[in-house]
Amino acid sequence: MSIDYKRELESASKSMILIHDPNVLIEMIVRMIVQKVKVYHAAILLYDKDKKSYILTVSRGETGIKVPAGYACMDSDNPLIEFFHQRKDKEIFNYGVVLYEEAKKLLRKNIGRESKQLLKGVLYQMEIFDSVICIPSYFHDALLGILLLGKKKSGRDFGADEIDFFVALASDVAMAIRNAQLFIELREELDKKHRLFIHTTVALAAAIDAKDHYTHGHTARVTTLSLEIAEKIMQKNKKKFDNKFLENLHIAGLLHDIGKIGVPEAILNKQGPLTPEERKKIEEHPLLGVTILQPIRQLEESIAGVKYHHEKFDGSGYPEGLKGNKIPLIAAIIAGADIYDAMITDRPYRKRLTKETAIKEIMRVSGTQLAPQIAKSLAELYEEGKLQENILCPINE
Amino acid sequence: MSIDYKRELESASKSMILIHDPNVLIEMIVRMIVQKVKVYHAAILLYDKDKKSYILTVSRGETGIKVPAGYACMDSDNPLIEFFHQRKDKEIFNYGVVLYEEAKKLLRKNIGRESKQLLKGVLYQMEIFDSVICIPSYFHDALLGILLLGKKKSGRDFGADEIDFFVALASDVAMAIRNAQLFIELREELDKKHRLFIHTTVALAAAIDAKDHYTHGHTARVTTLSLEIAEKIMQKNKKKFDNKFLENLHIAGLLHDIGKIGVPEAILNKQGPLTPEERKKIEEHPLLGVTILQPIRQLEESIAGVKYHHEKFDGSGYPEGLKGNKIPLIAAIIAGADIYDAMITDRPYRKRLTKETAIKEIMRVSGTQLAPQIAKSLAELYEEGKLQENILCPINE
Repeated sequence: MSIDYKRELESASKSMILIHDPNVLIEMIVRMIVQKVKVYHAAILLYDKDKKSYILTVSRGETGIKVPAGYACMDSDNPLIEFFHQRKDKEIFNYGVVLYEEAKKLLRKNIGRESKQLLKGVLYQMEIFDSVICIPSYFHDALLGILLLGKKKSGRDFGADEIDFFVALASDVAMAIRNAQLFIELREELDKKHRLFIHTTVALAAAIDAKDHYTHGHTARVTTLSLEIAEKIMQKNKKKFDNKFLENLHIAGLLHDIGKIGVPEAILNKQGPLTPEERKKIEEHPLLGVTILQPIRQLEESIAGVKYHHEKFDGSGYPEGLKGNKIPLIAAIIAGADIYDAMITDRPYRKRLTKETAIKEIMRVSGTQLAPQIAKSLAELYEEGKLQENILCPINE
Repeated sequence: MSIDYKRELESASKSMILIHDPNVLIEMIVRMIVQKVKVYHAAILLYDKDKKSYILTVSRGETGIKVPAGYACMDSDNPLIEFFHQRKDKEIFNYGVVLYEEAKKLLRKNIGRESKQLLKGVLYQMEIFDSVICIPSYFHDALLGILLLGKKKSGRDFGADEIDFFVALASDVAMAIRNAQLFIELREELDKKHRLFIHTTVALAAAIDAKDHYTHGHTARVTTLSLEIAEKIMQKNKKKFDNKFLENLHIAGLLHDIGKIGVPEAILNKQGPLTPEERKKIEEHPLLGVTILQPIRQLEESIAGVKYHHEKFDGSGYPEGLKGNKIPLIAAIIAGADIYDAMITDRPYRKRLTKETAIKEIMRVSGTQLAPQIAKSLAELYEEGKLQENILCPINE
C-alpha cells in the first residue's frame, strides 16, 4: 500500500525544526494533515505546563464539523489522558494508538473489568470529538499531546502503513515542540537579562542623579524624551532606526550625566553663581562619563551620546566644539531632551519655564544651540500634547 | 531492496534536533554511519563561516584508512566544492550525488569539455579521500557540507534506495546543524548581555567607590575575595553552590557599598574621628543600598547581601542586629571579605595591617564579629598564599 502524502508530510515535519514557535508549528502540521490526508477534521490536545491540563490547541476542518479550539481542557484523570499516560493495558493498546472501530470490537471481547471501564471512557471521549483515530505523542516518556483525526473523506479506513506513519510523525512533532520550547526558554532568559541590565542601570543612574539636588528625576525624563524624539524623527523621515540604535540611545540617556559623580557635591549643589573654575569642573562631566564607561566595549555607540551631549549645533559647545552634523545623532537627540528638561526645571538662579515658553525658546536656539530637526521634533511633540511638564515620568520598559 | 539500518539512522537523525552543539551532532552522525552502513570510513566536509572554506571536520573509520580530520581545507574553487555549488551540470549530476564508478564511466562518454574537466577534478578529490560516494547537504540552496563515504566492507555497491536515503539524511543533518547554530547564536547573545550587565555594574560601582577616598579599589577587591571565600567553602564542605548563588554573590559584592552614594562626601572623607551623628549617617548605607536596588526584583538575593553585610556573628552589627546563621550566607561572606579588606587598607586613624597581622585579627574576632567558617576560610586562603595585599586586583570575568 502506498501513501502519496507521506513524503510531503515527512519533509514538512523536518522543516518544522526551524519553526521556533510551538503554536505556529502545531497549526501548520494540523492544517497539512487535513489537506494531505484528506480527513474531515483534525485537532491536537496539547499539554499546558501552567494549567497542568491538556488543551485542545488547534482544530482544523470544515466549519460545523471541526471541534472548536479551546473547547476542551482535560485533567490527567480524563479517560483519554489516563489511557495514554498508563500505556500499560497491553490488551487494548494497539500500535500505540486507538482506532475507534477496533476499540469497539474489543469491548465485546473478554477483557478485564477495569480495562473495559477505561476503554468505554476513551470511546466516549472520541465520540465527543467525532474522532476515529487517536495518536499520542511522547517526549522522554511524558505524554506531550494527542492527535485526533476525523474520518477520511474517501470513506476508507486507515491502513497499518498509515498508522505507522502517524506514530513516527507524532514523535517528530514532539521533538520539534521540545526544541521550540527550549528556544523560547533561552529567549526569555535573554529578555530577563536585558531587563536586569536596564533596571540596574536605571537604579544606579537615578542614585547618582539624586546627588544633584536640582535635577531630581532628570535622567529618567531625558531618557524618555530622547526616545520620543527618535520616534518623531522616524515618523517625519519615514525611516526606521534599527533596534540597536534605539537601545544605544536608551542606555546613553540613562548614563549621559554619569560623570557628575566625579564633580564635588559642593559645586553641584552650590546656591548662587559659579566661579569660572567651578564651571570648568562641571564641564568636565561628559569626559568623566567617558572615562567611567570606556572599558565597556559594547557601549561604544552609547558613549558617543555621553561624550557629546553638551556640543552645540554652531560649534560653541564642549568638550570638542563639534559643529552641525559632525555631532553624532545620538548626542544631538540627548542634547535636545537635556536642554528642554533644564528649561522646565527650577534652578538656583531662575524659576522654571512653562512648556509654551520653553518651546518658544527651543525654536529660538534652533540652528545655534540645537540641530533644527531636533528643535522641530520637540515643537511637534509639544503640538501633539506629548511633552511632559516637570513631573516624574517613569521609564517604560 | 531493504535497508536494515534505515530506521535506526532515521530515528537518530530525528533526535539530533535536540543536540545543540553542531560538532557533537556531526561526530555522532558520522560514527553511526560507519557502524550501521558498515563502510570502511566516513567523513564530513563542513563549511566554516570564519575561514570561508570547507573543512574536513570529522573523520571516522579504521586507523590507517580514515583521512585525518583537519587534513583538508577547501576553497570554493576546489572542483568538488565548485561542482556541488553549481549543480547546473545536469549531464553529470546524478541523484544530486556523485558515485565514483558512475562518474568514471561518464568520462568516457561524449560530454562537454568543461564538464569533463570539472569531473576529472572531482574524481581526483575523491581518490584523495578514498571515497566512493559524495552526498552534498544544502540549506536554503547554500552548500553546507559534503558527506564522503568509503567502500562498504561487504564489497557491494550502494543501491538507488540507499542513495535516496542518504540524500534525505543529509538534508536532516543540514537542518539540525542550522538549528544548532541558531541556538549557539542565541546563547552567545545571552553571554554578551550578561557581560554588558556585569561590566556596567562594575564601572558604575567603581565610580561610586571612587567618591570614598579611603577605599580606592575596595569594591573590586571585596568582590574577588568574596568569590574566593565561596570557592573555599565549597571545597571544605565538598558541596557545590549553584551558579545562581555565585552570580548573586558576584553582583552583591559589586553593589554592597552602593548606598554610600547617599552619604555626604564631607562625612565619607572626613579626616579625624566621626561624631555619633556622622557615624549614624554612615551606618545608613546598607539600607540606602536596599532602597536603590529594591525595585529590581531579579536582585532579591543579592540585595540580602547588600542589606546585611555589616551584621556581626554575635548580633552586635547593623542594621538589624541579626545573629549567627540568621545572617544570610551571602552577607556573611561579603562581611568577611569587607572586614579583611578594611584591615589591609590605610585609614585616616591608623596605618594598614600586614596580611599576617590581619589574619591573626580575623581569627581573634571569629565567633564574635565573624562566622567561624568564614574566618577559617580566610585563614586557609592565607595559608595557601591566595590572599592579596592591598593592591588593585581586577575582577576576572
